Amino acid sequence: MLIQLQTDISADLHEKLCEKIQQFGFKIHEVKTQSGKYIICNGKVEIDIRAIGGLQGIKDIHYVSDEYKLVSRQWRVKDTEIDVGSGVKIGRNNLSIMAGPCAIEGRQNILDTIEHLKKNNLRILRGGVFKPRSSPYSFRGVGIEGLKELYQLCHENGIKIVTEVMQVSQVVEMFDYVDIFQVGARNSQNFNLLDALGEAGKPVLLKRGLSGTIEELLYSAEYIFSAGNEKIILCERGIRTYEHAYRNTFDINAIPILKEKTHLPVVADTSHGVGIRRFVAPIALAAVMAGADGILLEVHKTPEEAMSDGQQTLYFEEAEMLYKKMSEVYNLR
Amino acid sequence: MLIQLQTDISADLHEKLCEKIQQFGFKIHEVKTQSGKYIICNGKVEIDIRAIGGLQGIKDIHYVSDEYKLVSRQWRVKDTEIDVGSGVKIGRNNLSIMAGPCAIEGRQNILDTIEHLKKNNLRILRGGVFKPRSSPYSFRGVGIEGLKELYQLCHENGIKIVTEVMQVSQVVEMFDYVDIFQVGARNSQNFNLLDALGEAGKPVLLKRGLSGTIEELLYSAEYIFSAGNEKIILCERGIRTYEHAYRNTFDINAIPILKEKTHLPVVADTSHGVGIRRFVAPIALAAVMAGADGILLEVHKTPEEAMSDGQQTLYFEEAEMLYKKMSEVYNLR
Amino acid sequence: MLIQLQTDISADLHEKLCEKIQQFGFKIHEVKTQSGKYIICNGKVEIDIRAIGGLQGIKDIHYVSDEYKLVSRQWRVKDTEIDVGSGVKIGRNNLSIMAGPCAIEGRQNILDTIEHLKKNNLRILRGGVFKPRSSPYSFRGVGIEGLKELYQLCHENGIKIVTEVMQVSQVVEMFDYVDIFQVGARNSQNFNLLDALGEAGKPVLLKRGLSGTIEELLYSAEYIFSAGNEKIILCERGIRTYEHAYRNTFDINAIPILKEKTHLPVVADTSHGVGIRRFVAPIALAAVMAGADGILLEVHKTPEEAMSDGQQTLYFEEAEMLYKKMSEVYNLR
Amino acid sequence: MLIQLQTDISADLHEKLCEKIQQFGFKIHEVKTQSGKYIICNGKVEIDIRAIGGLQGIKDIHYVSDEYKLVSRQWRVKDTEIDVGSGVKIGRNNLSIMAGPCAIEGRQNILDTIEHLKKNNLRILRGGVFKPRSSPYSFRGVGIEGLKELYQLCHENGIKIVTEVMQVSQVVEMFDYVDIFQVGARNSQNFNLLDALGEAGKPVLLKRGLSGTIEELLYSAEYIFSAGNEKIILCERGIRTYEHAYRNTFDINAIPILKEKTHLPVVADTSHGVGIRRFVAPIALAAVMAGADGILLEVHKTPEEAMSDGQQTLYFEEAEMLYKKMSEVYNLR
Repeated sequence: MLIQLQTDISADLHEKLCEKIQQFGFKIHEVKTQSGKYIICNGKVEIDIRAIGGLQGIKDIHYVSDEYKLVSRQWRVKDTEIDVGSGVKIGRNNLSIMAGPCAIEGRQNILDTIEHLKKNNLRILRGGVFKPRSSPYSFRGVGIEGLKELYQLCHENGIKIVTEVMQVSQVVEMFDYVDIFQVGARNSQNFNLLDALGEAGKPVLLKRGLSGTIEELLYSAEYIFSAGNEKIILCERGIRTYEHAYRNTFDINAIPILKEKTHLPVVADTSHGVGIRRFVAPIALAAVMAGADGILLEVHKTPEEAMSDGQQTLYFEEAEMLYKKMSEVYNLR
Repeated sequence: MLIQLQTDISADLHEKLCEKIQQFGFKIHEVKTQSGKYIICNGKVEIDIRAIGGLQGIKDIHYVSDEYKLVSRQWRVKDTEIDVGSGVKIGRNNLSIMAGPCAIEGRQNILDTIEHLKKNNLRILRGGVFKPRSSPYSFRGVGIEGLKELYQLCHENGIKIVTEVMQVSQVVEMFDYVDIFQVGARNSQNFNLLDALGEAGKPVLLKRGLSGTIEELLYSAEYIFSAGNEKIILCERGIRTYEHAYRNTFDINAIPILKEKTHLPVVADTSHGVGIRRFVAPIALAAVMAGADGILLEVHKTPEEAMSDGQQTLYFEEAEMLYKKMSEVYNLR
Repeated sequence: MLIQLQTDISADLHEKLCEKIQQFGFKIHEVKTQSGKYIICNGKVEIDIRAIGGLQGIKDIHYVSDEYKLVSRQWRVKDTEIDVGSGVKIGRNNLSIMAGPCAIEGRQNILDTIEHLKKNNLRILRGGVFKPRSSPYSFRGVGIEGLKELYQLCHENGIKIVTEVMQVSQVVEMFDYVDIFQVGARNSQNFNLLDALGEAGKPVLLKRGLSGTIEELLYSAEYIFSAGNEKIILCERGIRTYEHAYRNTFDINAIPILKEKTHLPVVADTSHGVGIRRFVAPIALAAVMAGADGILLEVHKTPEEAMSDGQQTLYFEEAEMLYKKMSEVYNLR
Repeated sequence: MLIQLQTDISADLHEKLCEKIQQFGFKIHEVKTQSGKYIICNGKVEIDIRAIGGLQGIKDIHYVSDEYKLVSRQWRVKDTEIDVGSGVKIGRNNLSIMAGPCAIEGRQNILDTIEHLKKNNLRILRGGVFKPRSSPYSFRGVGIEGLKELYQLCHENGIKIVTEVMQVSQVVEMFDYVDIFQVGARNSQNFNLLDALGEAGKPVLLKRGLSGTIEELLYSAEYIFSAGNEKIILCERGIRTYEHAYRNTFDINAIPILKEKTHLPVVADTSHGVGIRRFVAPIALAAVMAGADGILLEVHKTPEEAMSDGQQTLYFEEAEMLYKKMSEVYNLR
């Protein structure tokens, strides 16, 4: 059971309410986010929900059978829209295209990408400054100084940034220079990081684990929400299967299933989802057709010279045709 | 290397040609289909392809690095169109929708389905008469007598039939009553059956194995083609992964990859590909968007009463909306 | 519910019994094997089992919740021992080692293998004469004539043969020349073949599918048993996973789980289960330690010259050390 | 190429050496651990290794084709033995059994476990104080205070502790109270944590990811080693596959493969590897037979009352029989 409180509920009333619910036999978990106050009630207690619904200070009360209660669509039927600021919104009636290089490479690379985005009326740049790499000897990104430069250039041009955060200590370090924190597939169940991002309050783009289940993704989102942050975007990015004809198996089924199970926006990273340049476009279009609220795309002026993952990165020209087509598909839905 | 011969090549010239190629050091494999004569040349011999190309009796000659040579797009660049008869065609510029019950249940069920197809201008009915079932105690289908009834009713109404063949001896038994033989996922590497269907010559719809690779599917198609039958339709139907939130993981990546690797038509069985009724439509639309030449759909007047797999079967009304939408998506491509 | 009848039950009594059980509301499925008569009773009927147990003609009656009833250990608690003839037995207190080349190559190869087996007191030779191959252009085995030669030489030397049967028509063709029919991984759910082998009555070694579940393997065994043949040996041979550091993931968990769920012997093909020669021995020893009743091993005098799968084939000398060690491990159990 | 320096090499000589190697065209990466100094030389340079080998200050030089160079057996042929202190050693000629509850529950639970370990001459207690949980509403462990109590009681009894660390900030917090830091499956590619543990220097037990490859595990170990810590124990704990008859698929193949590829000790967590109590013993014995240097076991006085994962936890009595049997199997190897 999930109780949404009135945000101006008095401390006294709040306390009494909690006591009463506990008397029913529920174990309660209180949550306060940017925009709401909630009480999660766990326990196999059967009560007439109306017995509580009428109490003062309660805005709404719902029976939620899912164990990931706050992110469940069982209580919030309407799609959540995430406000990233400056008029940039994700979810509900928006198709959000986030494009950029796999890894930020430096000033020229940033300027090229910004120009490309502006030309195509895109508002969100994706690109890693801290790169998780299997081998300790690989390039690990331009780091915090690179991020500052990225932020400055983007900020001047009205472009928002989504970039990966890899550990708790980076949350504070990066806070002023990102618009959306990205949690990568390898950190999808880094619960301490999820807690910290919940407390930080900025929008979070949460990727599904390398072989994470749909349910685990929703639980990870519940971590963030229950720690205080409602601004969560889920991202399907392909899963690990026996098939090695491509990089990952893009799980198209996950798109409509997530859209049914949660009110949060669901986007697709089809660059990683297939991992081979010439198949990124059809998969991206398919993802939009299946209901995705947005697409993450790796683009580069000269992918063959990109510092990482060039083989799944689109040329600017290819990407432009795809943006146009994605809008057509979105409008057909 | 793949050599396509002129179909009217004289026996004498044919023999001399083979000798010559073998003298180069190739191991040859001769293939004769409904519409062509081919020589597959295997071996790590490097020759100037023009040295052979000019010989009499040769229609065309190609260097094909894929080991599945006949089904490879490396030599036949144009999409293959399969003629099922009576104006029904699959592949190239056709979107083929094949709909019907999971298992044929009897006369009334057949009549309902035919009426539904005709109302929607569809020409191909899918439905099993021999059903592969994990347990020996489950319903195994209405069998050959049911097929005969199905054929008669479809034939009278201009409807073509695609239905599963499970073993070699059924190829002859079923031959006069099917338009397209379906090879199910469990028989995707039943090589004797593939050989027999190659010899039979009727169109074959070949499903990918439960955990078959894309390459294995192409090899299985090569079995059929090299045994004499060019009329092959490939079918993606979902693969087995760790995720159990749905029945199978529909491998959307496989659609554009197969379309690149082979000239054969590629269709999608999204009923099995996700296995849950309310997600079949978005996945089917995504599959069309990604490049599929057709969709197999389980439909039923009253799915809750269907003899098998009702939970992935669409109501006729749901299906009708989907057909319309699929056409729109196809036209947008 | 499973009822075992007395084998000398009169036709009249038999019929009455069936009627009575059906009157209770069960759907019955009658099974007659080499050594027993059974009635499988399906249905959600709750009866006092003693009401039937006392009836004439009934040898035994069991409540079996598993849907694979005949192969379940719920009714036959004791390990089944399979008599292959000439004193060769599999299961219960026997460790069965079956060794030989991947594919039978010809007379000398047979003679070498027989000599190797006799030197090590082994009684069962494994080796394919019909080979399932992904590509139609690969070597498909020496065929029926090769099998006849194999049989003659083995027969003279007191050696039993286990070899793969790929289709229904081969069951009759091969019958007189094999001691154990092997069903390969790709045919693990070729239900017509399973039925035919059930009727044939000779011992069957049934491999798990490429990505078959433990439950599906038991169901496939149930096909054979319910078609009349109790002589079934199950074989774990590795499953398909995302890990490609080796050929297949040998599912060691499956060994004790199968041993718990069924009374049938369970053997392990560790040559395919790992697919790399130098890891075959430790995995084989682990499989014995985990409870396997036997091991299939690919061995060859000169694996580097073997016609197929040489890289997972042991040299005779390596194999000899392994046989000895396996016995020690078996005795330690 | 990997160069091991003499530990007392002069700063001057060291610098000159690095310069010289870079002049050859290598990119170098310097590593200093508790017991050694190394230069990792990356680059496709071909040199006569003897040209460097004779230089002053070099202890040893090896050509290492693996990209995980420091953990590779290509240069350190002998098994590494890890000294945990107080005579407790892991690897080489030791069979290390680490047993305890899934989660530490409190004083009585600790005392019971210590008594059990001492009775069986075991020296290492496993048990979580910080528990990674899919749901934010689950019990997350007794935390740092619980760890302190655990440490005090173990310390008094000569028992070493292995327990999971979940984030960088905990490394310092936990440092004085653990003997071996465990990195859980979900953090197997938490590269910042790996770096921090490399710098900390205490022994690390590194688990394979939920669907991590063998290669990724070795790369993760390389992170720790290259950050300064040679004391690494690898742990196979089952992988995620399509089979759901048990919790994870214990990858027995990984044991001999890891033992071949690395000089580090390899242990097996068979409690998680199969996840069902009655199959833990055969799998643990199989793992030892396949070459494991140790086993992690969940044991509890009363598993049915355990705070988490009771169904994969052995009763003390069951565990005792298993310890004895494991020793016998180890001696047979």
